[in-house]
Amino acid sequence: MNQAAYVAVDWGTSSFRLWLIDRAGNVLGERRSAEGMMAAGKPGFANVLQSHLEAVGAAQELPVLICGMAGARQGWVEAGYVDTPAPLASILRQAVKVPDQDRDIRILPGIAQRDRNAPDVMRGEETQLLGALGLEAKGDAIVCMPGTHSKWVTAGGATVERFATFMTGELFDVVSRETILSHAVNGADEAEDVEAFKAAVIAAREAPAFAANLLFQVRSGGLLFGGTAAAAREKISGTLIGLELAAGLAGGIPAAGITLVASGRLERLYRLAFDTASVSVRSIAAEDAARRGLAMAAAAIWNV
Amino acid sequence: MNQAAYVAVDWGTSSFRLWLIDRAGNVLGERRSAEGMMAAGKPGFANVLQSHLEAVGAAQELPVLICGMAGARQGWVEAGYVDTPAPLASILRQAVKVPDQDRDIRILPGIAQRDRNAPDVMRGEETQLLGALGLEAKGDAIVCMPGTHSKWVTAGGATVERFATFMTGELFDVVSRETILSHAVNGADEAEDVEAFKAAVIAAREAPAFAANLLFQVRSGGLLFGGTAAAAREKISGTLIGLELAAGLAGGIPAAGITLVASGRLERLYRLAFDTASVSVRSIAAEDAARRGLAMAAAAIWNV
Repeated sequence: MNQAAYVAVDWGTSSFRLWLIDRAGNVLGERRSAEGMMAAGKPGFANVLQSHLEAVGAAQELPVLICGMAGARQGWVEAGYVDTPAPLASILRQAVKVPDQDRDIRILPGIAQRDRNAPDVMRGEETQLLGALGLEAKGDAIVCMPGTHSKWVTAGGATVERFATFMTGELFDVVSRETILSHAVNGADEAEDVEAFKAAVIAAREAPAFAANLLFQVRSGGLLFGGTAAAAREKISGTLIGLELAAGLAGGIPAAGITLVASGRLERLYRLAFDTASVSVRSIAAEDAARRGLAMAAAAIWNV
Repeated sequence: MNQAAYVAVDWGTSSFRLWLIDRAGNVLGERRSAEGMMAAGKPGFANVLQSHLEAVGAAQELPVLICGMAGARQGWVEAGYVDTPAPLASILRQAVKVPDQDRDIRILPGIAQRDRNAPDVMRGEETQLLGALGLEAKGDAIVCMPGTHSKWVTAGGATVERFATFMTGELFDVVSRETILSHAVNGADEAEDVEAFKAAVIAAREAPAFAANLLFQVRSGGLLFGGTAAAAREKISGTLIGLELAAGLAGGIPAAGITLVASGRLERLYRLAFDTASVSVRSIAAEDAARRGLAMAAAAIWNV
């Protein structure tokens, strides 16, 4: 049997993922749970981690590398931020050791943009960036990382120059669940309405100022012309993603296209959205990016 | 004592307002309650109206004119829509009589824009428009009617040419109550932060595509630089109102400026917002506009 070299943990706001990794980078064991930062405070971060380490049979001396919200002020141990422009190599160097532990446990810092006109923070995505771009990246890149709080990152080589967070995913949730539009979306099945989605992306990109009007059209269009719940959901989704793209693509697109860090439904939707703008996309699954970033960091820190 | 000539009712989604009016337009009696369309279904619209008519001592033969959501499909009696371009005079002509009542009760129709690329509906605001513009209006006008679902109306003379609804007020509610920004806004007192509001309006008007990013800055700015709950609330409010203005003012501004139908805090905020765009504004309180519109309609229908 391969021998484990270290443990990698992506500890987000609402999810916990752990991988037991060998020297060659193979995954020997894996754990997933909903014990994210919000849930882990009560049982205690150390206890949550310990139970999962035992479940995968991690040896006592095995080091653990963590990224994500476990390093937030409301998390386990505050891991601070690297400020922009942030070389990805600094993230490795500024990992914070969790005190008073039997084993070597370190948490990677986030990145802060301390610009009063465009303040921004990320925590967890910096590790995905490391995985997606690598420490040897050359040239300019734009990385789109969709989610509850989507991040758009401008990188020069292996340095994060600037970034912006868009509340796209969270807006989709509250708009489709908590507003008058919830009636139109109610009962939507999983069927995707690609045409409704694309049309909404195009409309929002062409007239982003009309976003709050385009959203209301989900209701008024339904009243006057009918329509399915799936089409209503896709119109909300397309409007908000189109609004995000209008901003993200405003500064121009590198020759290499866009790097998309996403998987599943989000990856499909953002690919469709980029299609409407004729932007070429190379994508990497968010989880793979995080694990690859953690592997690079572990290699640099422990030479594993 | 003056003799009552008719009863005017503004029956919205969540509010009910009734006025007993004499021939000269004086208000002899008034009722307000939360028995809007949503609440009136259960006790019955006829019963709710009757109880308020008795409370103001309305005589048995007194006619009643109603505008608003009581005329919606989910309301009392469906009063339909006048289609754009909609002469305000058509609204009077298409009032619908409530059947099987002892007295003459009529409900004014809404306005529909049956354009597949910009479907829209209003119900209640058409009566405020009648009150704000009158049947003899000349020239072009843009009317801004802020609220849960703000309406922007382009009128040529006394005809509604086009309009657009923006979910500004409802977005403000869900964003400030149901998202991660709620922590930043929590505990905000009534104190207004005019500078934070104006700065947010300007930023959103300049870069509407960045709306979902400007909203997130309420959180990231607070994390990196601190700030009051009132400033956080005003930044959310200013961002959403600035986004609305970016769209509403995109088509140019008539020489006469903008007609603003609003009162209280909303009137103050929209005035501040228009100030940042150097747009001149004449405002009329929403309730006065509705009552004036109902008076014009009552005069035309019953010659009172």
